[in-house]
Amino acid sequence: MKIGDALKHYRVKPGGKVDLSALDAGDFSLFPEGGKGASVEVFNQLRDELQSLQKVLYAQNKHRVLVVLQAMDTGGKDGCVKHVFSQVDPQGLAVTAFKKPSEEDLAHDFLWRVHPHVPANGQIAIFNRSHYEDILAVRVKKLFGDEVWKRRYRHVVEFERMLAEEGTTIIKMFLHISKDEQKRRLESRLANPAKYWKFNPDDLSDRARWSEFQTAYEDLIEKTSTEQAPWFIIPANRKWYRNLIVARILVDTLRGLKMDFPTVNWDPRSVVID
Amino acid sequence: MKIGDALKHYRVKPGGKVDLSALDAGDFSLFPEGGKGASVEVFNQLRDELQSLQKVLYAQNKHRVLVVLQAMDTGGKDGCVKHVFSQVDPQGLAVTAFKKPSEEDLAHDFLWRVHPHVPANGQIAIFNRSHYEDILAVRVKKLFGDEVWKRRYRHVVEFERMLAEEGTTIIKMFLHISKDEQKRRLESRLANPAKYWKFNPDDLSDRARWSEFQTAYEDLIEKTSTEQAPWFIIPANRKWYRNLIVARILVDTLRGLKMDFPTVNWDPRSVVID
Repeated sequence: MKIGDALKHYRVKPGGKVDLSALDAGDFSLFPEGGKGASVEVFNQLRDELQSLQKVLYAQNKHRVLVVLQAMDTGGKDGCVKHVFSQVDPQGLAVTAFKKPSEEDLAHDFLWRVHPHVPANGQIAIFNRSHYEDILAVRVKKLFGDEVWKRRYRHVVEFERMLAEEGTTIIKMFLHISKDEQKRRLESRLANPAKYWKFNPDDLSDRARWSEFQTAYEDLIEKTSTEQAPWFIIPANRKWYRNLIVARILVDTLRGLKMDFPTVNWDPRSVVID
Repeated sequence: MKIGDALKHYRVKPGGKVDLSALDAGDFSLFPEGGKGASVEVFNQLRDELQSLQKVLYAQNKHRVLVVLQAMDTGGKDGCVKHVFSQVDPQGLAVTAFKKPSEEDLAHDFLWRVHPHVPANGQIAIFNRSHYEDILAVRVKKLFGDEVWKRRYRHVVEFERMLAEEGTTIIKMFLHISKDEQKRRLESRLANPAKYWKFNPDDLSDRARWSEFQTAYEDLIEKTSTEQAPWFIIPANRKWYRNLIVARILVDTLRGLKMDFPTVNWDPRSVVID
């Protein structure tokens, strides 16, 4: 196996079972030799290709791409956005970070605040957290009765089906880190005043429910990984590997759209500019 | 049968067949005696009750109500909104008229422009035309391939299921007029300079496709009348009867929510105001 297998290897097949404890968050099996140092060149090539593909996506103004990122705290969502998308034209890219829902959000159905941010033609939209929090957090923190999050599996599957059938390509990524790795990352935030702002004491209460969140993620991924909107479980303990795999999956997905610059219905040679 | 049977009588049962040509648009069978003159008092009572029910809806801030109005041109959507809702506190009411989709709308899925306008807690939202145009017009005018409107039945059913399960009460009304009645109404617009603005020459091209639209409506109502979001077919040749039935259905639906003013968790008697 090699890096080119990432799209297939880390994709959760519809109907497949998910056992996060059996998936090594430190895995780097698709790029086993050379490690971080050797990965730089490969990653830079992928990042350049992503930039080129996005130019065509934007010019063609036909496809819409939605990337959903989910992870436990410190899982690397922000870092992933920064590293993988830093070269992409910001005009064709919109990142939405979904925080705790507001009172106005809660006065509506849970997809109401999400829908305005789905991508338009020619656009890539990235959701840093998403409508999946309205299942995960609601379940683990018991914010509403169990019937609420249970029926939301169907709501998100059908919502994503509609988006896909209307023309949106959807990729959902769970950045999988281990509990030990989270400990290291939280400690590093506390050891560095420049990272204090990233530390939120609330993160510790989520950490205390680690296994409940893992179970909730397993169920969620099993029930909502579909042909039209698959989940990918990305080993994310090694940041270089996480970025490499995320970039590779995005590039292969965009290549799969077989895009091209739009053709014009006039003859450029016939244009006379006085 | 009497007016109190309207909710049951004009509701399209999920899975039921619809043959519009067999339904008399001039029907007034639930209020057979006295006609328009005798209906005024009954209508005014219903309008008052609707006003009272909306006050509780607003104060309780718990339920959301969505009313979808569809009809052929001149079917009476505007008149229905004006007459039935004229006494309701505008603060708790939002009417959205959906026109031809903009370029920006078309760059997204068809529900994207609709979703922001669904009602919040305590609110009644009225859609004057709706996401159903994205099935009807797309089908009859062949705006996209047939596969597009066909799969949208499922999209709207699942969208409305999600809204309903998240707390929205949905009522969908088709104001059913005959082709002859439309002729009279169009002629009356052309005979009255104060009504010229309501006449749109495009209406005639829709009229020329009358039977295609009727078939499209029949299919649509059959495929999207569900327990959680039923369609009602309202005989609408007689405006007084249409208003009476619409008001009655709304009142009975709101009564069914068994609403009450919210209770307070403090003792009003213990409050001392210096």
